[in-house]
Amino acid sequence: MKDYEVFHAGDVALQHGPILAGSTLAYTTYGKLNEARDNVIVYPTFFGGSHVENEWLIGENLALDPSRYFIVVPNLLGNGFSTSPSNSVASPGPSFPLVTIYDNVKLQHRLLTEQFGVRRVALAVGWSVGAQQAFHWGALYPDYVERIAPFCGSARTSRHNFLFLEGVKAALKADQSFEGGAYRKPPIEGLKAFARVYAGWGFSQAFYRSECDIKDLGFPSLEAFILGVWEARFTKADANNLLSMIATWQAADISANTTYGGDFSRALGSIKARALVMPCKTDLYFPPEDSEIEVSQMPNAELRVIPSIWGHSAGALGRNKTDAAFIDRAIKDLLSA
Amino acid sequence: MKDYEVFHAGDVALQHGPILAGSTLAYTTYGKLNEARDNVIVYPTFFGGSHVENEWLIGENLALDPSRYFIVVPNLLGNGFSTSPSNSVASPGPSFPLVTIYDNVKLQHRLLTEQFGVRRVALAVGWSVGAQQAFHWGALYPDYVERIAPFCGSARTSRHNFLFLEGVKAALKADQSFEGGAYRKPPIEGLKAFARVYAGWGFSQAFYRSECDIKDLGFPSLEAFILGVWEARFTKADANNLLSMIATWQAADISANTTYGGDFSRALGSIKARALVMPCKTDLYFPPEDSEIEVSQMPNAELRVIPSIWGHSAGALGRNKTDAAFIDRAIKDLLSA
Repeated sequence: MKDYEVFHAGDVALQHGPILAGSTLAYTTYGKLNEARDNVIVYPTFFGGSHVENEWLIGENLALDPSRYFIVVPNLLGNGFSTSPSNSVASPGPSFPLVTIYDNVKLQHRLLTEQFGVRRVALAVGWSVGAQQAFHWGALYPDYVERIAPFCGSARTSRHNFLFLEGVKAALKADQSFEGGAYRKPPIEGLKAFARVYAGWGFSQAFYRSECDIKDLGFPSLEAFILGVWEARFTKADANNLLSMIATWQAADISANTTYGGDFSRALGSIKARALVMPCKTDLYFPPEDSEIEVSQMPNAELRVIPSIWGHSAGALGRNKTDAAFIDRAIKDLLSA
Repeated sequence: MKDYEVFHAGDVALQHGPILAGSTLAYTTYGKLNEARDNVIVYPTFFGGSHVENEWLIGENLALDPSRYFIVVPNLLGNGFSTSPSNSVASPGPSFPLVTIYDNVKLQHRLLTEQFGVRRVALAVGWSVGAQQAFHWGALYPDYVERIAPFCGSARTSRHNFLFLEGVKAALKADQSFEGGAYRKPPIEGLKAFARVYAGWGFSQAFYRSECDIKDLGFPSLEAFILGVWEARFTKADANNLLSMIATWQAADISANTTYGGDFSRALGSIKARALVMPCKTDLYFPPEDSEIEVSQMPNAELRVIPSIWGHSAGALGRNKTDAAFIDRAIKDLLSA
């Protein structure tokens, strides 16, 4: 049984030219759209994740409360649920074109307006690449979005973040059985290498110093943690899907479009939404310094640093209760403002 | 013409059992040994480096002044100059055994005593894995070493540092042409992936944010920097040599020997040498927090953080003049104490 709905967007002209034929956006919703059609929270997924993995922040008594809000979780293009290299008939595998966050958010806007007739978004929220989508919501639809709460993400992928992604890509592609994306069997060694490289970045130095992998997450050893968390996640994924999402991530920039023409400061300054930007203190690829710089150029933004040693994985999809409560509390503050 | 000397150590019983037959230590010296044989500085090489790349800290008017000191630069086992997978007749390629920093420093001690009759070491200094060797000098020869100046390194490889190395290893091995180390041609794609993964770690986020790769190092782009610095370095290296040195690095621990039986605090507490420990503020794999913890357990140590955004590459082998001057100044302070 399918646990998601599908929005059929038809043939979509992408930002960088090509048509993505038969585009679909897989999504889930929680709660009910009110009569004014303005109790909407859009909560896009993260790199490699899917709608199910967003559920840790949704629930009764949480900020994202379905008894109050209509919460829409659209899957990132390329994640295997929305149109992706793994499921596209028109552009399968390595022929899949570059899809940007701009493309994603434009499609998400169509989902909200065409499918649900949404008139205003109360909040765009997301983690990591989900946060990048929240930033894009603020910049691309300044009069449509009341609040944004990006956490552990940026309005533009930094050069260092770009470089880290070059590394994981290279590790995957070093496996000859990847065959330039034309593999018939999964390039398993490449996926394992991808996972092992990624593992170094996903938490912080202090996380490992404190042995949180063992003491908090219950793994018997670092190696078991690498296998159980990272290999398990990425060897299940389709290699071309991962690369497609990385391309999306690497190109992320709220100003890289005709509206802002690359003027990043102007794009940040155009975000009218009340913003609560939450980097994690120890994030290795979305470090708080980048958020600080971005917030300083946004007219209506607060920086609230998540005081955690869990690095980019602050909250850990709900497994870190302290971080999750911090993030939930912050979103409550934002929603009540 | 060979620009180094060779110390022939014969068949050496390694710490973890096997014999390394026909062991040699390639080394260079600068300056003259005085009559008391106590003006000696030992300055071991770093991961992937060789004696030549240590020269940026040696010279007239620098702390490591050959007119005053007899400076000995021993090459790390596995680096292609000292006994290594690439040159060992008895244990070539993937059959090369695990060599520890303990093994390296024991051999270096033999070089100093047997070859030169050195009675005391005035200073053991090094960068990165060179710093790890300096720490080992302090812990293994507490009555022989007067000072140590490890910079951007640790007395024990941290769990996170270990994990980062798992990533670069996996990237290299994902290339099937590595063939478990039995390659006949260099596994070039694996080496390139190794380099690209490594690149993300070698400097800091702030380095890339400030575009130091372009503005200070003169590369036209990030990609040119990756190719010119990282690929150029690691595609020249022998894959088994890199893996051997990584194994050395991953196992580094001044207490992992019969003297200290794994009691890290006791090993740190046994370092009698006056120590100046210099982490770089933004080092991603030898972060200053680790140095702080180590220094707090050393009886005669000062922590002096290098205030640089160049991350692990503080000094950059002399290309960052400010960092280089900071490090040189600190070593001068230590030598005059």
